[in-house]
Amino acid sequence: MRTGRRPGNPDTREAILAAARELFADRGFDATSIRSIATAAGVDPALVHHYFGTKDQLFVDSMQVPIDPGDALNRVLATGVDGAGERLVRMILGVWDSAAGGAAAAIIRSAVSNELFARMMREFITHRILRRIAKDLDVPPQEGLLRANLVATQVAGLLMVRYIVKIEPLASASSDTVAALIGPTVQHYLTGELGRVSAELGNGQPRRRGQESRDRELP
Amino acid sequence: MRTGRRPGNPDTREAILAAARELFADRGFDATSIRSIATAAGVDPALVHHYFGTKDQLFVDSMQVPIDPGDALNRVLATGVDGAGERLVRMILGVWDSAAGGAAAAIIRSAVSNELFARMMREFITHRILRRIAKDLDVPPQEGLLRANLVATQVAGLLMVRYIVKIEPLASASSDTVAALIGPTVQHYLTGELGRVSAELGNGQPRRRGQESRDRELP
Repeated sequence: MRTGRRPGNPDTREAILAAARELFADRGFDATSIRSIATAAGVDPALVHHYFGTKDQLFVDSMQVPIDPGDALNRVLATGVDGAGERLVRMILGVWDSAAGGAAAAIIRSAVSNELFARMMREFITHRILRRIAKDLDVPPQEGLLRANLVATQVAGLLMVRYIVKIEPLASASSDTVAALIGPTVQHYLTGELGRVSAELGNGQPRRRGQESRDRELP
Repeated sequence: MRTGRRPGNPDTREAILAAARELFADRGFDATSIRSIATAAGVDPALVHHYFGTKDQLFVDSMQVPIDPGDALNRVLATGVDGAGERLVRMILGVWDSAAGGAAAAIIRSAVSNELFARMMREFITHRILRRIAKDLDVPPQEGLLRANLVATQVAGLLMVRYIVKIEPLASASSDTVAALIGPTVQHYLTGELGRVSAELGNGQPRRRGQESRDRELP
């Protein structure tokens, strides 16, 4: 979370955030420059830098997420990918079980009901979350993105079932239980054998890591 | 899908459906009777039976789902639970890639943005989907529900990522690829070792199925 930076003129700040949301959703993160956001907001680019620092930070701020997932992922991945599946699930449950969970649920609701916000969310997830995870996986970037994308399916569904639709028994299960049940799946997506499709969606080289070519199967 | 039944007076039919949605969401499926729905709609119970047949069918109709998941699950499970993970993913992708996918997306949007509909969805998923899956799993009912609940997390997240937020590469991946990547996880939740938590959330008897007490781990 940002702290210690002067909030500046609230109107100007809001105008910049609104322009940023619009452009990130329309053009995507990579194709959106600080300069183009400044132009759309009718301010000088220096002012955007002054208020938000980097484009990354402006992106995070424009999503109004309760925590920066980049920071949280850094903590999860700081001790390597071993056991990261369960640590990731625990971290996410910690955020959602806290006061920040309400804000996070509001974000999911917006993403599902509003197409502009869904595109913004897509950019946000891809750039702030999936790429961050992929970076630590020690596999080619395309395969890393696929693995992180698979992790996202399991996590998004857990959030839907536990916090949005609230289906039992998982809605009321302890975070220890949920982490023990879901953590292995997340770990599998991060570092397990994906079988015959690694090659198709990855860089063309199936992962072998010192074992026979026969893919291990899930129990 | 219902066919061949007379639609009857559209206003009466709609009144019954509206009352059913309200009551199923408020009281849950089990505690809602045809009689109470008829009373709320101001019609004779015989008319509810005439229009909708069973309470099950009224429930399905009141959700306005594009297909009855009960029928689809019967087909997936007809040949047993072996390979059911991949067959389930293929069936779901088939529905979502077809014209029915739009209606299904609308249902998810409603469930996420509307609390009444979310409760309705919770009842629907629990009674029409999870219990149906649990029935075929050859485990105690509580464990079956947990396993089906876990399947629901993976499936819901896949739908969110691929069809609602549309994150790549999974948004554009072929259904063969998706089934090969996600199917093993679904199969794991259906029939794999859940480890130390089976006992906690199941019936108190960890599953052992002829193997050592040490739990197998995901690759």
